[in-house]
Amino acid sequence: MIRGFASDNYAGIHPEVLQAIIEVNEGHATAYGDDAITEQLRKTFRKQFGSHTEVYPVFNGTGANVVALQAMCQRWQAVICAQSAHIHADEGGAPEVMGGLKLWTIPTPDGKLTPELIDEQAHGFGFVHRAQPKVVSITQSTEQGTVYALHEIRAIADHVHSLGMWLHMDGARIANAAVRLGTELRALTTDVGVDVLSFGGTKNGLMLGEAVVVLNPEAAPGVDFLRKTSMQLASKMRFISAQLLALFNDELWRRNAMHANTMASLLEQRARAISGVTIPRRAQANAVFAILPKGVIEALQEEFHFYVWDEFTGEVRWMCSWDTTAEDVVEFTTAIAKTLGQ
Amino acid sequence: MIRGFASDNYAGIHPEVLQAIIEVNEGHATAYGDDAITEQLRKTFRKQFGSHTEVYPVFNGTGANVVALQAMCQRWQAVICAQSAHIHADEGGAPEVMGGLKLWTIPTPDGKLTPELIDEQAHGFGFVHRAQPKVVSITQSTEQGTVYALHEIRAIADHVHSLGMWLHMDGARIANAAVRLGTELRALTTDVGVDVLSFGGTKNGLMLGEAVVVLNPEAAPGVDFLRKTSMQLASKMRFISAQLLALFNDELWRRNAMHANTMASLLEQRARAISGVTIPRRAQANAVFAILPKGVIEALQEEFHFYVWDEFTGEVRWMCSWDTTAEDVVEFTTAIAKTLGQ
Amino acid sequence: MIRGFASDNYAGIHPEVLQAIIEVNEGHATAYGDDAITEQLRKTFRKQFGSHTEVYPVFNGTGANVVALQAMCQRWQAVICAQSAHIHADEGGAPEVMGGLKLWTIPTPDGKLTPELIDEQAHGFGFVHRAQPKVVSITQSTEQGTVYALHEIRAIADHVHSLGMWLHMDGARIANAAVRLGTELRALTTDVGVDVLSFGGTKNGLMLGEAVVVLNPEAAPGVDFLRKTSMQLASKMRFISAQLLALFNDELWRRNAMHANTMASLLEQRARAISGVTIPRRAQANAVFAILPKGVIEALQEEFHFYVWDEFTGEVRWMCSWDTTAEDVVEFTTAIAKTLGQ
Amino acid sequence: MIRGFASDNYAGIHPEVLQAIIEVNEGHATAYGDDAITEQLRKTFRKQFGSHTEVYPVFNGTGANVVALQAMCQRWQAVICAQSAHIHADEGGAPEVMGGLKLWTIPTPDGKLTPELIDEQAHGFGFVHRAQPKVVSITQSTEQGTVYALHEIRAIADHVHSLGMWLHMDGARIANAAVRLGTELRALTTDVGVDVLSFGGTKNGLMLGEAVVVLNPEAAPGVDFLRKTSMQLASKMRFISAQLLALFNDELWRRNAMHANTMASLLEQRARAISGVTIPRRAQANAVFAILPKGVIEALQEEFHFYVWDEFTGEVRWMCSWDTTAEDVVEFTTAIAKTLGQ
Repeated sequence: MIRGFASDNYAGIHPEVLQAIIEVNEGHATAYGDDAITEQLRKTFRKQFGSHTEVYPVFNGTGANVVALQAMCQRWQAVICAQSAHIHADEGGAPEVMGGLKLWTIPTPDGKLTPELIDEQAHGFGFVHRAQPKVVSITQSTEQGTVYALHEIRAIADHVHSLGMWLHMDGARIANAAVRLGTELRALTTDVGVDVLSFGGTKNGLMLGEAVVVLNPEAAPGVDFLRKTSMQLASKMRFISAQLLALFNDELWRRNAMHANTMASLLEQRARAISGVTIPRRAQANAVFAILPKGVIEALQEEFHFYVWDEFTGEVRWMCSWDTTAEDVVEFTTAIAKTLGQ
Repeated sequence: MIRGFASDNYAGIHPEVLQAIIEVNEGHATAYGDDAITEQLRKTFRKQFGSHTEVYPVFNGTGANVVALQAMCQRWQAVICAQSAHIHADEGGAPEVMGGLKLWTIPTPDGKLTPELIDEQAHGFGFVHRAQPKVVSITQSTEQGTVYALHEIRAIADHVHSLGMWLHMDGARIANAAVRLGTELRALTTDVGVDVLSFGGTKNGLMLGEAVVVLNPEAAPGVDFLRKTSMQLASKMRFISAQLLALFNDELWRRNAMHANTMASLLEQRARAISGVTIPRRAQANAVFAILPKGVIEALQEEFHFYVWDEFTGEVRWMCSWDTTAEDVVEFTTAIAKTLGQ
Repeated sequence: MIRGFASDNYAGIHPEVLQAIIEVNEGHATAYGDDAITEQLRKTFRKQFGSHTEVYPVFNGTGANVVALQAMCQRWQAVICAQSAHIHADEGGAPEVMGGLKLWTIPTPDGKLTPELIDEQAHGFGFVHRAQPKVVSITQSTEQGTVYALHEIRAIADHVHSLGMWLHMDGARIANAAVRLGTELRALTTDVGVDVLSFGGTKNGLMLGEAVVVLNPEAAPGVDFLRKTSMQLASKMRFISAQLLALFNDELWRRNAMHANTMASLLEQRARAISGVTIPRRAQANAVFAILPKGVIEALQEEFHFYVWDEFTGEVRWMCSWDTTAEDVVEFTTAIAKTLGQ
Repeated sequence: MIRGFASDNYAGIHPEVLQAIIEVNEGHATAYGDDAITEQLRKTFRKQFGSHTEVYPVFNGTGANVVALQAMCQRWQAVICAQSAHIHADEGGAPEVMGGLKLWTIPTPDGKLTPELIDEQAHGFGFVHRAQPKVVSITQSTEQGTVYALHEIRAIADHVHSLGMWLHMDGARIANAAVRLGTELRALTTDVGVDVLSFGGTKNGLMLGEAVVVLNPEAAPGVDFLRKTSMQLASKMRFISAQLLALFNDELWRRNAMHANTMASLLEQRARAISGVTIPRRAQANAVFAILPKGVIEALQEEFHFYVWDEFTGEVRWMCSWDTTAEDVVEFTTAIAKTLGQ
């Protein structure tokens, strides 16, 4: 299949990650995480995120989010998120149906919450008729391709904590954000007040594997139990841990994300140069959003895979991944231009 | 780590399965199951289980069971199972907490239900105070190492259907049962009235991967939606499908299971010959249960991993896997004899 | 306690309803609804709403809504409602936490949905990542005191049905709407395409008691079981049924609602005449919304109970009930005028 | 309808309770429990059960149990109870489906748990595969008509607490137990280590009304929120509070229960005297169990309502209530004798 721009999970396994799987496939290992590789992963995450960090590998992003949010909320508590948040829009109702979690959603211009926006839903504390806000969940980088600056996260964290709430970060694409910001992972999580992180691996070169990363243990008790109850505990866990670990070998996480971001920049730059293509906001991570004339979309989709983001506006989303090549971008943008008669 | 007898999920990935992962790691593939490998998997499962079969790969066995049982039950309906069933005893409450499923449990002598035993809980139809029995779930091979004969499943299926209920089979170790019975997979599922199967891959040589297999579409609507909502939908699904598919290449499923069963027979035979070791029931699949004097257990566990099944009786469980060797068995049984002063 | 305008559930039991309780308190009656009074209630509701109607008395409005919506949705299906809907804003998360129901919410200018507004969320059918819209829930009269015209409900019902969805009506104040529209109850439910109704009694003179009213049996299977499972099945049900029945004696439901609506009109009229008071929209049922200068609100609340509806705009809500008197209204509006220095 | 022996909830409202409803029906009262009557109820319960007591009126017994148990359990924790417990056998799956609670059940000879029996399920602490036992729930008096002695509860409480667990008491018929034991309510709850009580009112003369009574606040946080989320918060709460309060006027709770127990004793005594009737265990509260020849059951049921408890053994259950008369008992036992040809 041709490499398109539909999603960063159309890509396969990065060779170094695959190699890690192969290498760890030696003899027996205790199941469910009591193995040497997972222990090594714990050490690595503590080095990356701080000494109090606990890391719990899980299967997928929805699993990471739902396990994390359950741990952060009592049964009667609720989660505040952007209307565009993956947990609200794209998880088949898992937070509500599996997690028993009410979501209070907030429209945003660009997928990013602010203290002011959060206040639209962070109220009614103590009022039994209102599911009690306890967690704010932000996505970094966001579903709209934007990236929170460090001071923006800090401001949210301070505000959230001042209200007696916790801050969760859905980091399915945290690597792309860190690259954009030019920081270590710790700088945009632990150091700016994030309590629990859903760490993304699959979209950044893994076969599959994410992790619930508890940065503030007080914020999320019981993750080990909840992971099991939530059907997210892998028996042969060494193979998930080994993949996650591979991301920290020679900073593979950064190399992959940097490549994807660079390709997205190239794509944006070339697309912007095509008359008839509108780029509504700058690509800050590995997603490019564009507005195309309607007929053009269908014509292009005959050859290339990508999603229409908004049926009404004609906005489409193009994702770059660790294996997108400059040739792919050139080929694709050439096709766009051609379709537009240029 | 030394190869022990703690669990069949201490083993790694079978080389042919690993090879399948490597081979499918080529270019892009549509995510979430709309890929060519998953399509091939569908065809293979239809060939194996019948033309109406639908197969839905998931991450793990608990996930397969909870997705299947949700699909088979309306919100007010309940599941009948043996008290020793994995869904009741070993899934951290996932069926109840995630699936919202009431379980009606029945004590059994050997992990196997019968129509008579089922009747202990299959009553109260139409009585609103009683969560309505709708599904009987049996495990094949059972958690106690026993195997249902074909006519036993047929009798259960007929009884269950006559009551307007469905039959679910937890087949985490279905391959070991099929080998024991000397049949095709279809013969002990579709052909004897099973409606939905949780097909096990992980314990039989996969890195990870199971499947909800709908044999009777009427019995389980909405599995595609429920898999997503239940956090069991893999984005890069080709890699799970490829592993499952590998099991059907030259009947790898049968080769692996046959090996594990044979090792269990050897282990049973050699253990039985040791004075002081009691084998309470014949090993029919890849599990051997034994009763050992208490001090002996602790001494052995210093060197070998295995679980105590029943603290009160001193019964222990030894599992054989696709990579257990005759040398492992000899070494282990020699150690047992030695510990017992023989 | 002084009669204020905080809520229609600050009022007590209407004398005729109390009398019905007293009269039915004679000897034994079969529990859980197999009694003669509940049978009579069934007949009455069939006469009122059509011969296919099934009525299931429950304890409270949240209970009625959550039972109804569960019956109308498969586990993976979701409910579309206005952002101001009681099920979203005021039920402590019961639909999500107890019912396992995802809500897709839509901002509205006046609490009323339209086919166009519904389309904002009624999409993604068949797309597993999106919790599948199956029910539209409207409130009549709405939480904002507005009333759907018959043709508006009809248009919504037709649209909803054309999408393969069902229409639920939260009728906690349906009597006030019927009075406003000058119709029978059937005219604004069964006859315009409503599939299931939550029928309100408590706010219209009952001690407690609401009902799930299934107008289209195909839309809501299993209500009898779900009522029990949802902790909404009264053992001594005759006392709830007798209260609901009393509402249909000499059209008590209409008399009570008419009185409350009339008092609301009077209140609106007198309030509108006070300089400094803004009435943002006409009172169509028994609720009056007003915008007052901030200091005025606190001063008034020292003597009268009522709720601030919107902290930002200073909008307050005044509810009239079956026992509000013209004197209450005069006294209250006089106090408002006085506080405003008039 | 003739007064039978089917259930103590076939009886109506005790006149003093009805009078309390009538008296409290005066003017307006703040909804949802912020009223003077509910405040009085709080004081009364503190006097009865100890100064730390919090009382939360709810609609029904299942509601009380599910609210209480949710408050006592984290999401991953489970409840141990007798196999005959109402929460397991008779609540339509509400604890599992609504509460997300796993139940670990234990067979008992007479409905009563003991520390030894509890140990059958109180294990696996810290083992993620096993839903973590956190609460033991006992019923007083039990579903089998037996009564725990004070020292038996004390022994259970001490054992449960030593394991880091809490003790819940389902007191749907606690009054009958207190009468049997000749104690105050506090003596068989707070004073012997019960942490949370579901206090029963409906079966003891109320129209409807139970209460979650938190004796140990540490054991059950969030009950106020959970009551709302669990659809158990009455808007016009004064009417439920007034009924519960009436039970403490001149010890109505004791008078009613004493009467019912006395009638049960009389019934047992007279039934025991009939040849062909077997009384398998002494009636300790208001329930009498009897084994009758099969044909006799059907013949009697033509005239009198009562339930067959066990289809296999022919055991039936007869409940006495606050309004059972000696004449009822004589008439019934005469009919039994006559049916048996005596």
